[in-house]
Amino acid sequence: MLPNIPDTNYKRVVIIGAGFGGLALAREIAKREDLQVVLIDRNNYHQFQPLFYQVAMAGLEPSSISFPLRKVFQSKKNVHIRITEVHGVNPDRKSVDTDLGEITYDYLVIATGASTNYFGMKEIEERAIPMKTVSEALALRNRILQNFEDALSVDSDDQREGLMSVVVVGGGPTGVELSGTLAEMRAFILPKDYPELDFTGMQIHLLEGSGKLLGAMSEESSAKSKKYLEEMGVIIHTEQVVTGFDGKYVSTKQGLRLRADNLVWAAGIKANPLNGLNPDVIVRGGRIKVDQYNRVQGYDNVFALGDVATMSEGKWENGHPQLAQPAMQQGKALARNVWRVMDGKKAIPFVYKDLGSMATVGRNRAVVDLPFWKFQGFFAWLTWMFVHLMSIVGVKNRVLTLINWVWSYITYDQSLRLILKPKTIAQIADKEEKNTEVV
Amino acid sequence: MLPNIPDTNYKRVVIIGAGFGGLALAREIAKREDLQVVLIDRNNYHQFQPLFYQVAMAGLEPSSISFPLRKVFQSKKNVHIRITEVHGVNPDRKSVDTDLGEITYDYLVIATGASTNYFGMKEIEERAIPMKTVSEALALRNRILQNFEDALSVDSDDQREGLMSVVVVGGGPTGVELSGTLAEMRAFILPKDYPELDFTGMQIHLLEGSGKLLGAMSEESSAKSKKYLEEMGVIIHTEQVVTGFDGKYVSTKQGLRLRADNLVWAAGIKANPLNGLNPDVIVRGGRIKVDQYNRVQGYDNVFALGDVATMSEGKWENGHPQLAQPAMQQGKALARNVWRVMDGKKAIPFVYKDLGSMATVGRNRAVVDLPFWKFQGFFAWLTWMFVHLMSIVGVKNRVLTLINWVWSYITYDQSLRLILKPKTIAQIADKEEKNTEVV
Repeated sequence: MLPNIPDTNYKRVVIIGAGFGGLALAREIAKREDLQVVLIDRNNYHQFQPLFYQVAMAGLEPSSISFPLRKVFQSKKNVHIRITEVHGVNPDRKSVDTDLGEITYDYLVIATGASTNYFGMKEIEERAIPMKTVSEALALRNRILQNFEDALSVDSDDQREGLMSVVVVGGGPTGVELSGTLAEMRAFILPKDYPELDFTGMQIHLLEGSGKLLGAMSEESSAKSKKYLEEMGVIIHTEQVVTGFDGKYVSTKQGLRLRADNLVWAAGIKANPLNGLNPDVIVRGGRIKVDQYNRVQGYDNVFALGDVATMSEGKWENGHPQLAQPAMQQGKALARNVWRVMDGKKAIPFVYKDLGSMATVGRNRAVVDLPFWKFQGFFAWLTWMFVHLMSIVGVKNRVLTLINWVWSYITYDQSLRLILKPKTIAQIADKEEKNTEVV
Repeated sequence: MLPNIPDTNYKRVVIIGAGFGGLALAREIAKREDLQVVLIDRNNYHQFQPLFYQVAMAGLEPSSISFPLRKVFQSKKNVHIRITEVHGVNPDRKSVDTDLGEITYDYLVIATGASTNYFGMKEIEERAIPMKTVSEALALRNRILQNFEDALSVDSDDQREGLMSVVVVGGGPTGVELSGTLAEMRAFILPKDYPELDFTGMQIHLLEGSGKLLGAMSEESSAKSKKYLEEMGVIIHTEQVVTGFDGKYVSTKQGLRLRADNLVWAAGIKANPLNGLNPDVIVRGGRIKVDQYNRVQGYDNVFALGDVATMSEGKWENGHPQLAQPAMQQGKALARNVWRVMDGKKAIPFVYKDLGSMATVGRNRAVVDLPFWKFQGFFAWLTWMFVHLMSIVGVKNRVLTLINWVWSYITYDQSLRLILKPKTIAQIADKEEKNTEVV
């Protein structure tokens, strides 16, 4: 395998990762045709993380919230997309090591994001379901649906209730949205699909280590989201730190013990830094320390942005929140700074503009914190939907997502309840490898 | 695991398989509430086979052409759905063996359909991609897309052209539709996604053992589909029987040798009969011989219908064609005959009403044979779309499919080009099994 990237006289910008930050940077910087852009990702699509929970809850298809990278850059001849794994960087040789071989750069941008953090608890890592990729969200969907099928065929109440019950760990937006949607499915959908099952035994627990839900949001939003969830029957436990899961019982440091076969882990992330960097630049949470130009300390041509980077700026002394907005703003700013430097101008320090944050709890219920206005309820829910719809890449994805939402709203139904067997697909994929070996 | 099906005073009809035949039967027969219906399938959804090729070619999502069985029967309290594997039938004990245990019946209906037939050629079975389930169609999609990614990174023209080229075996509707869509993707989509690749090396071959394509259709339709495909650049080889595929070259009995890494097998099916039946009732192609009431010869309460059954009737001496129409008509007729027998009336022999057949070749091009009218071209294409749209289960599925079709038509694009890694999903599924063992 060879990277096969053509040599030109233009400077080459290698971007690792096509998440919110990497994609925003690539779209912006590629506008200038005297730059060659190489965009590397392990997937051939961009994933819209804020809606993973709807994929997990059978409300949306993965394709509605994922967008093929090649389509984004169809008309851009100066962009070269390579779907491969990156193993490390060699700053001395100005190159990165990939499964396709070595790729050299003039500028390198590390936008590798973050992944699930189990804080070293192997027992949980082995058994919990994470929610950091669209594949994991699909796996959670399959799991929940399969459990209800299995619940029909067990011979004890304990087994049945264990299969049906879910413990969600992490009171951030993902945990809140997931447990809210589960509660709605329990109220409106599942009893119709499974009239043979008794749903009083299905428990939905939401556990949070700190004292409140949605810790990054306002007090009002935090309190309101708790009230909404409790009205929907979600059992909320704050100040509970999960320390064990044997497949049957979830246990916490504080002594709680909850019966559930299903543990969804949305409790923490750690950054994905690259091998080959000076270890001194990797700080808390695995994040790479960058200056106000997103430059990695001690390197001239290496940059990092988004979840994997941490920049001390204004009130964000310990780095910006690991969300889409800072990543996208940094991506755009970095593109323009690269242009400025190429043109002999001075780069402009990055300043984060906090546009606010929001979370949805269920039908007609959301919480929104804007810089100068906080509101909750139906109008917040409409706002949440509008903002997320407009953020999805691709007009068709927006149309399909809107139809799915309107449909679910009217019918109280989410109809994507197929258990597509990944093993069957993987077995056929194995055939491919057999071919590849032969070739 | 227990089947947990409640005992009632009503007669129990056990239906194995929720394809076109089994589903039509279950929907009809369940209308009578003094019957208990047990519907068994290995998947929790019904699959609309005629559009698998569009899933494979990234035009539709699996969920648009699959429908959750529990949703179909949500309001039916007398229907019990069990997602499990059936291993065989014990006619003496009036029961079937499943992974959930033994399930007894008063009437048994075998609607297990057919699967891919490799005619004993292990080398081909190991390497070819079949097209008989929606999972297989998705696997083909992943394969084709991944191959184009790989083609960017090889160092010889031969490797690149092998990765890009496809041999489709079988000149029936699936083979014709698949090679036509591939040719369209080559013309309109792939060169835009992969401007770095030279598409003159991408060859699409369609191989058929008999002398003509669409053998079950009229001479006009057969000739026209050949003309259409050739205009689109598909290389058609008739009277070629594939006998080998080493992963690099496809070879035929007649001495042809074609370079391609991808072999799609749409060349034959074999019925899926059940273990435990008298071997004398299993005839050509594995089909189960039934009388004109779909009763399996020699059994009072065992029936078979659709692809797995063969009934000698009128001009259909060797059984009806293995298509959706005969299966659905038999399902409806059998439901009514069971009712008649329950009411002490005489059953009515089945008569197949041939409604015609059709196939689409590409944009604006299809062939339609109705009993008294044959036509081809744009109007045939509209007819094909209308008939297939109306046959899809579920209003929402119809709406989403229509949007996808209109969108593709206007934009010359099929945008579902995500390579979702089935192994990632399967690995998380393995976590589930670990849990199950613990439980």
